[in-house]
Amino acid sequence: MSARGVLGAAPGDEVHIVVLRALPEIVPGDDLPGMLSAAAVDAGLAPGDVLAVAHKVVSKAEGRVVRLGDVVPGAAARRLADETGKDPALCEVILGESRKVVRRRRSLVVCETHHGFICANAGVDASNTPDGTVVLLPLDPDASARGIQHVLSQAAGGRVGVVITDTHGRAFRRGLVNVAVGVAGFDPVVDHRGGRDREGRMLVATDQALGDEIAAAAGMLIGKSSGRPAALVRGLVTAPAPGTLRDLVRREDQDVFRARVDDDGVVI
Amino acid sequence: MSARGVLGAAPGDEVHIVVLRALPEIVPGDDLPGMLSAAAVDAGLAPGDVLAVAHKVVSKAEGRVVRLGDVVPGAAARRLADETGKDPALCEVILGESRKVVRRRRSLVVCETHHGFICANAGVDASNTPDGTVVLLPLDPDASARGIQHVLSQAAGGRVGVVITDTHGRAFRRGLVNVAVGVAGFDPVVDHRGGRDREGRMLVATDQALGDEIAAAAGMLIGKSSGRPAALVRGLVTAPAPGTLRDLVRREDQDVFRARVDDDGVVI
Repeated sequence: MSARGVLGAAPGDEVHIVVLRALPEIVPGDDLPGMLSAAAVDAGLAPGDVLAVAHKVVSKAEGRVVRLGDVVPGAAARRLADETGKDPALCEVILGESRKVVRRRRSLVVCETHHGFICANAGVDASNTPDGTVVLLPLDPDASARGIQHVLSQAAGGRVGVVITDTHGRAFRRGLVNVAVGVAGFDPVVDHRGGRDREGRMLVATDQALGDEIAAAAGMLIGKSSGRPAALVRGLVTAPAPGTLRDLVRREDQDVFRARVDDDGVVI
Repeated sequence: MSARGVLGAAPGDEVHIVVLRALPEIVPGDDLPGMLSAAAVDAGLAPGDVLAVAHKVVSKAEGRVVRLGDVVPGAAARRLADETGKDPALCEVILGESRKVVRRRRSLVVCETHHGFICANAGVDASNTPDGTVVLLPLDPDASARGIQHVLSQAAGGRVGVVITDTHGRAFRRGLVNVAVGVAGFDPVVDHRGGRDREGRMLVATDQALGDEIAAAAGMLIGKSSGRPAALVRGLVTAPAPGTLRDLVRREDQDVFRARVDDDGVVI
């Protein structure tokens, strides 16, 4: 528990989510950290703020954009295309981003990415991209987040957190939510057990996925169109830490929903 | 798309989450809607606000509290207790709240509740409760939300939304997040496709689980201790609707992660 208060809870019990002004269309090589920093400063950036930014602009700045016309689909991609009705070149890109395909039904292809995320199309995004191109997830989203965090923390004169977000579907529940796919500057999973709130009550919450809650909170406002990709979340108390997406990814051998089970659902 | 703006996006591009003042320990029969309304009015309640409230106080007010000493475990509960090391009476309560047990590993019991939620212990909560008792989910959380919504909307002089929250684990990702287990007053799943943002950009987001994002956002601040169970989320644009948790629950036959699959993960 931080000396400043209960992690996740604001000292003033109030959190503000402020959308940053629109950015121009991002192209490979753009100084995205500088652009985000300038917009964040205009919005009053201060130490302790957490910047949430949609992965798509990060990926575009890093050149993680593929022209499907340049892709030569292999045999596995052509087979996947036959079975799903998807473009063979898109299937080649999806398979290249995947450790494996975990579920398929008709055109739905859910993959485990090289980062360990379980998501549709291995995070390859064909919406709101220049014609004939697709946008991939950053190769190393934590490194992307650290790059942004470094520039913003310098501008703020103190530690700022960064979350890179993507919209994922879920097992069991309908609709998409924004989750954290890259983290820098704070612990994205918090164990409150044994702490006390400011009125002295014992805390019982354990393993709060604060990084994902921040992503979901910002997701109420950002990422619906290309022009408003980032927001500041201010008023939270976070634990200073390098931060990593690995804390939010459940390993397959820890996941009862990817385990082999008997007819009673018992993991075997 | 609402005439007032893009659903989920604030007209002012800013959302505030304001924790309500502490409530006394809630006991069965308390007028929780009235207590929440008074606290919300003190926090400046206005039409358009969404109140997020942790289910535990709702359940307590509704008497959804069971004294384990009063429970006689049946054969199935005694078997589950043997296999998991849990209290047989607790197992009886968990099974009573469940349509079925979907996964088990050691002491972990993940159930499908009668509402359709997939969560540990069927949502039965033994933490932060009076000794020897457990708190169940509300029988009809949408009805609970409607009851609160009615009183708050009257106090606000206009439509207020309500989300009842619980903390759930997830497949694939570590840590717990707050999700909506009851909804009133707005559509918890939003399809933005075909809309435009206020700068005229086409929107691409589809089926945003806004109800869950609101729960996660409020979850950054509420529910960690018994005393601060509710927050106002203000500045969102929501679609007026009765609202229901059913829009957020994926039916088993629509869920590729509960389907039978072949060795390649293809749903069969």
